[in-house]
Amino acid sequence: MAKEKKMVEAITSMDVDFAQWYTDVVKKAELCGYTSVKGCMAIKPAGYAIWENIQKELDRRFKETGVENVYMPMFIPESLLDKEKDHVEGFAPEVAWVTHGGLDQLQERLCVRPTSETLFCDFYQKEIQSHRDLPKVYNQWCSVVRWEKTTRPFLRSREFLWQEGHTAHATAEEAKERTIQMLNLYADFCEEVLAIPVIKGQKTDKEKFAGAEATYTIESLMHDGKALQSGTSHNFGDGFARAFGIQYTDKNNQLQYVHQTSWGMTTRMIGALIMVHGDNSGLVLPPRIAPVQAVVIPIQQRKEGVLEKAEELTQILKAAGIRVKTDATDKSPGFKFAEQEMRGIPVRIECGPKDIENGQAVICRRDTREKYVVKFEELAAKVQEVLDTMQKEMLERARAHRDAHTYVATNYEEFKETINNKPGFVKAMWCGNRECEDKIKEDVQATSRCMPFQQEHLSDVCVCCGKPAKKMVYWGRAY
Amino acid sequence: MAKEKKMVEAITSMDVDFAQWYTDVVKKAELCGYTSVKGCMAIKPAGYAIWENIQKELDRRFKETGVENVYMPMFIPESLLDKEKDHVEGFAPEVAWVTHGGLDQLQERLCVRPTSETLFCDFYQKEIQSHRDLPKVYNQWCSVVRWEKTTRPFLRSREFLWQEGHTAHATAEEAKERTIQMLNLYADFCEEVLAIPVIKGQKTDKEKFAGAEATYTIESLMHDGKALQSGTSHNFGDGFARAFGIQYTDKNNQLQYVHQTSWGMTTRMIGALIMVHGDNSGLVLPPRIAPVQAVVIPIQQRKEGVLEKAEELTQILKAAGIRVKTDATDKSPGFKFAEQEMRGIPVRIECGPKDIENGQAVICRRDTREKYVVKFEELAAKVQEVLDTMQKEMLERARAHRDAHTYVATNYEEFKETINNKPGFVKAMWCGNRECEDKIKEDVQATSRCMPFQQEHLSDVCVCCGKPAKKMVYWGRAY
Repeated sequence: MAKEKKMVEAITSMDVDFAQWYTDVVKKAELCGYTSVKGCMAIKPAGYAIWENIQKELDRRFKETGVENVYMPMFIPESLLDKEKDHVEGFAPEVAWVTHGGLDQLQERLCVRPTSETLFCDFYQKEIQSHRDLPKVYNQWCSVVRWEKTTRPFLRSREFLWQEGHTAHATAEEAKERTIQMLNLYADFCEEVLAIPVIKGQKTDKEKFAGAEATYTIESLMHDGKALQSGTSHNFGDGFARAFGIQYTDKNNQLQYVHQTSWGMTTRMIGALIMVHGDNSGLVLPPRIAPVQAVVIPIQQRKEGVLEKAEELTQILKAAGIRVKTDATDKSPGFKFAEQEMRGIPVRIECGPKDIENGQAVICRRDTREKYVVKFEELAAKVQEVLDTMQKEMLERARAHRDAHTYVATNYEEFKETINNKPGFVKAMWCGNRECEDKIKEDVQATSRCMPFQQEHLSDVCVCCGKPAKKMVYWGRAY
Repeated sequence: MAKEKKMVEAITSMDVDFAQWYTDVVKKAELCGYTSVKGCMAIKPAGYAIWENIQKELDRRFKETGVENVYMPMFIPESLLDKEKDHVEGFAPEVAWVTHGGLDQLQERLCVRPTSETLFCDFYQKEIQSHRDLPKVYNQWCSVVRWEKTTRPFLRSREFLWQEGHTAHATAEEAKERTIQMLNLYADFCEEVLAIPVIKGQKTDKEKFAGAEATYTIESLMHDGKALQSGTSHNFGDGFARAFGIQYTDKNNQLQYVHQTSWGMTTRMIGALIMVHGDNSGLVLPPRIAPVQAVVIPIQQRKEGVLEKAEELTQILKAAGIRVKTDATDKSPGFKFAEQEMRGIPVRIECGPKDIENGQAVICRRDTREKYVVKFEELAAKVQEVLDTMQKEMLERARAHRDAHTYVATNYEEFKETINNKPGFVKAMWCGNRECEDKIKEDVQATSRCMPFQQEHLSDVCVCCGKPAKKMVYWGRAY
């Protein structure tokens, strides 16, 4: 009973305190737990199962484009990290350093990888000799460490899980193409599977990856109007190749530098799922990513035949390819409903003695709470239909929310006013100078999220300095 | 041509220099590469794909027994590692220490996990209150670090990949059962999937895991007669629970300590696959674990219709559920054959203009080199049959080799003579005292591999000291 009470206790309303609501959902949906290791999280079964589904789906899509998985060491010798100037400047201040192995001090410090460009470059330098060795299209699934000062579960932690793809190509064109291909893959994945609409674009020089020639990004908008960088794809040109001496002999027997890319997506997407789709009853998971898509909850389960029928329905749904389980625990139905809602299970199926008499069950959809009374023989088809509709409508709803919170500003007063009072994206023109980005950051704590591929002409001048505009930019406060 | 030559060059014969043969296979089958990080390896696509298949198969078997996956931090604060006395003594001398985060020295050193008992205990201590919270049957897939002095690819490296299961139970009986259940799962996996026969048994106190009440092991025999510990399962009793204060209230409202287990299998099984099944042409992969089970090699591929037919056969085999690819590169057939053999692809299918005229292809089996001429319409069924037979016979052959290299010794002269001259397992009686294990290690560099569950009575006295015997033990030199 004590535990039931704990779960049924309302979580903080997202309209009252969004940050506290987020923390409550993470905790009560049992996605992750705190540990004795400061800034690092323990990902619990309900959270990790989401990550496994993300992995499975991304990995399948990667492999369809020719990606091969590998595994590189987790340590980077200091001298290796130092090889590319911009890269080391970007990462050295936030890495964890290993100085001792067993009882001995190391001759050279090793950092725990914050990202693995330098390791892949070192590897490619040894592996690539001829144009026949190209392209290399490698990826690894691993954890990385960045010594952040302030941390939040899934969104920013000292250690997080991700995949990092690292490719080497014969030509600049091929590298550019791969960079864009992977950005599109991420965007499609977010929209089709996570039901999260994204803006595709390029980062400004200020915001690009340390060592990249160009960084492309997908940006999404959370329910509270803050932006989340959701996946990035970097084109390195031949910068790293020159720093690491990665050359191949082309068909004319000439030595050439390779052109490289890298791209990554992380466990922060679990945070995005919470903040895009969640509500005041907890998590709401899009059916395609939900580890459990439907739960059958028996009503008056001690009555004869009820548990058996619940189990029978579960088996029928399972046979139809639906990820389903029965909740046959001895908790009350009301408690089970609250739990199913907190955990974001897309559909629940209620079935009691009266339903059985009538040969029917009740389907309840998590996001809209719509209910359907369905004959047993139509149950599997109807559940699948509800899941499909829910997946589609969750994306539409998120897109409508994003669009309703995307504003335009054509002068600086309007820009500041909007950023300060209307959480969301602000589209505005920009002159291309870093000074304006710095001023905007200083004035209203917003950053350039991206220069979208789909440019619009909103005015002729930079919203900040009034000089001639070069690009339309999405601005926003971000996680 | 230069590259062709490099590949076709014979590898060292396993009978001349087994260690060099192993290194050659690892390199030429492109399983892993050396890195600038001393003692750490880069697992290449061909090696990592084997690991992915091991993961997929083990993970499925785990989940069938109720295992849930989680992810714990990679760092362990020194004070946490120190909590269980035997455990810290076992691991502290071989861990990597992080002392700095970014530019700051840490207040407390963190070690990179060599294994995660302490982290799971810390987590369980927070999570477990009531008997309703039990059992916890968690597992994680990750990498761990042990600062080894001497390293060898897959067999012993400073960082390696593994899974580590950590469970907590209400009773000692349940913990014991889970320990044995997982050992049996590992044994079945090795035999059914990797075609590696194993001896199941218990480790002596000298060889058991640091902090365990009992360690169970599966031991396999490599082609050179050396043993390989292939998977272990530990019963901790309530030792860790007492050190970490992990208690629950039972149904009578009494505080009780939990009982715990852990169990793991690592990337060293890729080394086992090489050393159990490989031959002087390279790797030989059991069909059930092979990332590519069959390769179609067109003969005289420039002749009209040959490449098309090869691709058609590949599609037919793919449709039959076989993992297959066409080798349509511009290398010579002889080179492609050598490559297929080096990489251990179980079956190759040769098809040239004459074959096409006759409506047939040639199947060649990797391990026995048996060839079958098969009509196109029977190809898929025959390939599947060959794969099934090969899987079965590889296990039988490995078991016959293991049995032929398992000896009995009933006195110490015979024991030393056998260990020194006949590589393999030696079964002999043991008094139960560590002194005899130490003396044997000193005299002939052999260790007790396990006290097998299937005990035999070989004599009444210890093979070493002549005192009354307590157990029959498998002895051997080991990797």
